[in-house]
Amino acid sequence: MRAIGVVPGQPESAGVLEVEDPPLSDGQVLVRGILVGICGTDAEIVHQGYGHVPEGASHLVIGHESLGQVVEAPEGSGLRPGDMVVGMVRRPDPVPCPSCAAGDWDMCSNGGYVERGIKDAPGYGSQWWRIDPAYAVKVDPALGRLGVLLETTSVVAKAWEQVDRIGTRSRVAPQVALVTGAGPVGLLAALLARQRGLDTWVLDVVTDGPKPELVAELGATYSSAPASELPVQPDVVVECTGLGSVLSAVFAQAAPNAVLALAGVSHHSKLVEGDLDAVNRRLVLGNQVVFGTVNAGRRHFEQAGHALGVADPAWLGRLLTRQVDMARWPEALVKTADDIKVTVSLD
Amino acid sequence: MRAIGVVPGQPESAGVLEVEDPPLSDGQVLVRGILVGICGTDAEIVHQGYGHVPEGASHLVIGHESLGQVVEAPEGSGLRPGDMVVGMVRRPDPVPCPSCAAGDWDMCSNGGYVERGIKDAPGYGSQWWRIDPAYAVKVDPALGRLGVLLETTSVVAKAWEQVDRIGTRSRVAPQVALVTGAGPVGLLAALLARQRGLDTWVLDVVTDGPKPELVAELGATYSSAPASELPVQPDVVVECTGLGSVLSAVFAQAAPNAVLALAGVSHHSKLVEGDLDAVNRRLVLGNQVVFGTVNAGRRHFEQAGHALGVADPAWLGRLLTRQVDMARWPEALVKTADDIKVTVSLD
Repeated sequence: MRAIGVVPGQPESAGVLEVEDPPLSDGQVLVRGILVGICGTDAEIVHQGYGHVPEGASHLVIGHESLGQVVEAPEGSGLRPGDMVVGMVRRPDPVPCPSCAAGDWDMCSNGGYVERGIKDAPGYGSQWWRIDPAYAVKVDPALGRLGVLLETTSVVAKAWEQVDRIGTRSRVAPQVALVTGAGPVGLLAALLARQRGLDTWVLDVVTDGPKPELVAELGATYSSAPASELPVQPDVVVECTGLGSVLSAVFAQAAPNAVLALAGVSHHSKLVEGDLDAVNRRLVLGNQVVFGTVNAGRRHFEQAGHALGVADPAWLGRLLTRQVDMARWPEALVKTADDIKVTVSLD
Repeated sequence: MRAIGVVPGQPESAGVLEVEDPPLSDGQVLVRGILVGICGTDAEIVHQGYGHVPEGASHLVIGHESLGQVVEAPEGSGLRPGDMVVGMVRRPDPVPCPSCAAGDWDMCSNGGYVERGIKDAPGYGSQWWRIDPAYAVKVDPALGRLGVLLETTSVVAKAWEQVDRIGTRSRVAPQVALVTGAGPVGLLAALLARQRGLDTWVLDVVTDGPKPELVAELGATYSSAPASELPVQPDVVVECTGLGSVLSAVFAQAAPNAVLALAGVSHHSKLVEGDLDAVNRRLVLGNQVVFGTVNAGRRHFEQAGHALGVADPAWLGRLLTRQVDMARWPEALVKTADDIKVTVSLD
């Protein structure tokens, strides 16, 4: 069968591979691949050598944002042929840490996990893939190809769940949310903020194109001004750029008791001068919280399915700005100014 | 009556004042002052001008770590003459923010609160004081003079409650606690860590004297080595020094999924060079949380009363290293190497 793959860090190796059909050891559920979404992690794999090729393989089959249709599934798996499914990205460490043993492999504490399409396991960017039912998440058929947004949404669903759980430390619920970065993660974080009824602000650097429109259509407010010029003090922030400079600016603007969720990473490494005593003082005297969140567990995929199910399909459809054929998949790595989520079709 | 007071920022003004008996407007409960504890905030008031004198007064009566005995209390207040009581520090803003309106004035979000002995209200460092029953906390009479530790303990009780509530984001409970700073706050934070059954480590710079002994008696491990040399990775940290350099070191040593509670402030302002992108990346990929905590609400005073009630009174007694007579109270501001909690007697 055909698959999309690369040797991490060797962009010239990115192409279509002829690989063996997926082995039964990958899981009892056989799936026909429909789409994979491409994100910053894929670009890092290709250009910066992030990730790790599975043992015995020459290339890494990429694609961790999946959508497929079940062809075969065992009795009692909860899946039937024809079901639309998404595969989870992370699998627990074979020698599970306490979090993995408890089913929260998104919180793996020993780093021994495997991630499909990223670390030591082939991704979902192939005509066929197999998966254990434990890691397959059924998607509402009404979503159709929008189901490819499930994985990205699961990451923001986890961020919001963590905001809620951390929020139990206070009796006052947040009112004003700020999302930084209007890429797919930021827009979906804003969608979930609006679904919670929060006064939602989205910051990004662009001044035109689809992002400001998509934000406005959510009933949220878009701004390309610096965080310090916001007319509100957010009491919850979902930071999606991963940039230290953005983190610093939103931290300065956050309200007392604010909860800041960090949901993005950047691969810059820039030394900046700052006063850590003052940062500490501000956190303490303001009862503020900053937390990082990565990946998602099964319940977050389910929360994401609910969030997408109640969203406007036309709005979600506008996030899928471009679809690239499998044969030309490396084009999906190059984003244009108006691109939000670029997908690769496998069918 | 006599009271201990100062004009903030004028150390030479620190002395014993002759002031009016407490007005009924301070509250219907009349209390005979027994002890006040002195802490870093008092030293900041005296030397650095922190705090604010109440309107119409020439000096600030200090003392926010209180202990007294009820002399008069109204029916239905839950208090009777003879009861030992501690007064809460913070009172809600007269124009309450949402947190104050919900009873969580330790989470006040508009800064309009009043703090006895610190901001716009006389402290408890007087022969008599009055208080509204809403802000008086009854102390187990078995604690005797150890009750003066209640306020400090309430601050660490809040920190631990916040650790617990934030901890609901993960299914795995922490095992290893690190406390930085072995002053009264740090030692009481370690006491609560041990009461939770955690493998507890305490870092401070001193190499001898009572601190290492007190830590060992808790069944915790004392170290004066840098955090980077700890043989464990803590999954919960209670940082009590307020120093950015300590925060930075413990952050580097913390386990994945760690929760770092910041419970101290320092008044240094030192610019350091750091890589905020890398800090963000570490928080995100490690699912880590950093939060600040200040002050305490009524339930934290009650949690503190429980924690002190089940602790070894001999151990608690060793925290009260020195008692100074009211007339010589400014001596309490000067801590010796072996001082832990210095108190001023009012009786």
